[in-house]
Amino acid sequence: MLVLDGLGGVRTSTRGSEIAEANTPNLDRLATEGSSGVHTVVAPGITPGSGAGHMALFGYDPITYVLGRGALSAAGVAFGLKPGDVAARVNFCTLDDAGNVTDRRAGRIPTETNERLCRMITENVGLPHGVQAFITTEQEHRALLVLRGSHLSALIKDTDPQDVGVPPHPPTPVGPEATSTATVVEAFLDQVRKILHGEQANFLLLRGFDTHRELPSFHDRYQLKARGIAAYPMYLGLSRLVGMDTAPAKANWDEEMAELEASWDDYDYFFVHLKGTDSAGEDGDFERKCAAIEQVDGTLDRVRALNPDVLCVTGDHSTPAPLKRHSWHPVPFVMWGPTVGVDSVTRFNEESARGGNFGNQLAKDLMTFMLAAAGRLRTYGA
Amino acid sequence: MLVLDGLGGVRTSTRGSEIAEANTPNLDRLATEGSSGVHTVVAPGITPGSGAGHMALFGYDPITYVLGRGALSAAGVAFGLKPGDVAARVNFCTLDDAGNVTDRRAGRIPTETNERLCRMITENVGLPHGVQAFITTEQEHRALLVLRGSHLSALIKDTDPQDVGVPPHPPTPVGPEATSTATVVEAFLDQVRKILHGEQANFLLLRGFDTHRELPSFHDRYQLKARGIAAYPMYLGLSRLVGMDTAPAKANWDEEMAELEASWDDYDYFFVHLKGTDSAGEDGDFERKCAAIEQVDGTLDRVRALNPDVLCVTGDHSTPAPLKRHSWHPVPFVMWGPTVGVDSVTRFNEESARGGNFGNQLAKDLMTFMLAAAGRLRTYGA
Repeated sequence: MLVLDGLGGVRTSTRGSEIAEANTPNLDRLATEGSSGVHTVVAPGITPGSGAGHMALFGYDPITYVLGRGALSAAGVAFGLKPGDVAARVNFCTLDDAGNVTDRRAGRIPTETNERLCRMITENVGLPHGVQAFITTEQEHRALLVLRGSHLSALIKDTDPQDVGVPPHPPTPVGPEATSTATVVEAFLDQVRKILHGEQANFLLLRGFDTHRELPSFHDRYQLKARGIAAYPMYLGLSRLVGMDTAPAKANWDEEMAELEASWDDYDYFFVHLKGTDSAGEDGDFERKCAAIEQVDGTLDRVRALNPDVLCVTGDHSTPAPLKRHSWHPVPFVMWGPTVGVDSVTRFNEESARGGNFGNQLAKDLMTFMLAAAGRLRTYGA
Repeated sequence: MLVLDGLGGVRTSTRGSEIAEANTPNLDRLATEGSSGVHTVVAPGITPGSGAGHMALFGYDPITYVLGRGALSAAGVAFGLKPGDVAARVNFCTLDDAGNVTDRRAGRIPTETNERLCRMITENVGLPHGVQAFITTEQEHRALLVLRGSHLSALIKDTDPQDVGVPPHPPTPVGPEATSTATVVEAFLDQVRKILHGEQANFLLLRGFDTHRELPSFHDRYQLKARGIAAYPMYLGLSRLVGMDTAPAKANWDEEMAELEASWDDYDYFFVHLKGTDSAGEDGDFERKCAAIEQVDGTLDRVRALNPDVLCVTGDHSTPAPLKRHSWHPVPFVMWGPTVGVDSVTRFNEESARGGNFGNQLAKDLMTFMLAAAGRLRTYGA
């Protein structure tokens, strides 16, 4: 399963989508020799986040298996959440003297500054009720907060106002079971405000409070020994949440391909993730997104040479460069393998794919098709 | 959201559907610049009534939000149903001396006669258990009956036999909780039979017994300030059921367009309804249905000039002129707006639309697509 993050695009009045405009002879050959379709990631009209998109591609209904930002961030930094822990995604931010947010990302402080500030917080914070706080650097202004203690609840609203010129929201419980946790978070933030006084990054915005969730593993669900390969830690974290093995993040796509080849014989399933398509889409950089697609196209022969039972190339959602953000538009996919069947589609792009054998599908069903194509599912019913 | 009632048609061996045969340069241009699809209104193979069709287009699953004929009629005449009320749709009919139905519409009596007979009934009827009966003229042979009292139940079968040469059905309870209500309805009908003796319209047929239902409003569900515009009161009533504002029914499509333009700045969402397509379809008048479609086509520039975030043109069900009635056939739609995306469809009709980016959808999901295209939905999942 090759996932080009944010692959899907839109045709506008002036040009086609990125995948339609990119030069992709090998993906087109895959489409010619396999069967195509488009998938709806969550539900019609719904724009998925990265967690939901990958859960769906892994065959986990994203409406049943909801991952909050906190759990995703914990997965990304390989923080082992335990049952009862509460995790939140952290932005270091800048407040003015009146306490209003002037920069939600504190000028994207260097990761080293982030690490220094996290140490300061860890060394100086002391919470009531014996609650422990772990604050872990992700990158730049991003960090993870984990609270560990008894009777904690994740039913706390975001303190991130998603805007500047206003103060952060106070930590507000959504239900009565979260009242004491909100008090703990409030105490934490009061202390942090003093600890970070005078720094450019002088406060924290918290969002996506979440708890540990035990997900059924790939092995339990599919009897597959699975491996996740990515250049971004968060996607390795996502792989580990469903029980995939991972090696450290790779520096680029070529290294990811090399890891795929080197570990090929040891696994039944591979998830290989490309981030560049999504980043380029979010930046509105049409050409860079095309180039990222072409980079995958250029290495497709290496994947084919491994003779997979089934190969699926798709995205976890659309990130059309003209829109500069994730969108609700369905995502093309192509499936290729000896038992998949061939349709009359000869190009890999949204519109061609829609006319393929698979037509419209839900993303969560792609895994079933792959298992079927690999001969790993029994006949249903007598 | 422009709704051409009963828009969908069927191609026969001799010619295309109405929308395919109509001359619609502006709708075709919309299809060219936007994305098309077809929608299934309720479920595959199911023919929707007007209430179900509109509920679906408003984004209310028509299987969850069931509107009976009674509630629809009440909405149409702006009768304020209260909790506990039981409403039924009324046809004035003609019975022969043997008590068999000879005309289910009493020769489509003039509305004035209907009003006179309703007054006669109101003045002369007296029901047991303190139940009040309100009978309100709709149009021609159509009226609304509302019963108000304690412990009334709407679980009463239609008395309309849907046939001539047979007597009306007695009011039969579907469950034991409706036994006393059935007795009340029986008493009502016995009195009506005497009151109307000697009239051409000498009896009533009742169908669609229904109760008051509180529907979540457009504002609560979508945070939209919405307005409904129509030339027929029932569709304004439907709009009001979901909390839309309405002005009195307009005399024709041009007046509806004028209302749209005049109120454009005050609302977030508009539902504009054309009845002519459905009426022509029910009459089997192919050319008149084409002309109604062409009338909308001719004013499309006025809608585009308002610069909507998203424009959707569709129908609430199919009413193919060759079939002279509502049908189960999917309905074409086109969506147009800066974030919708473009497909290769260049004609607005059933067959072209099916090959568009949206493919097959459920009618209830069109509202989600519109909200997504207007940037009014949050990302799902982290």
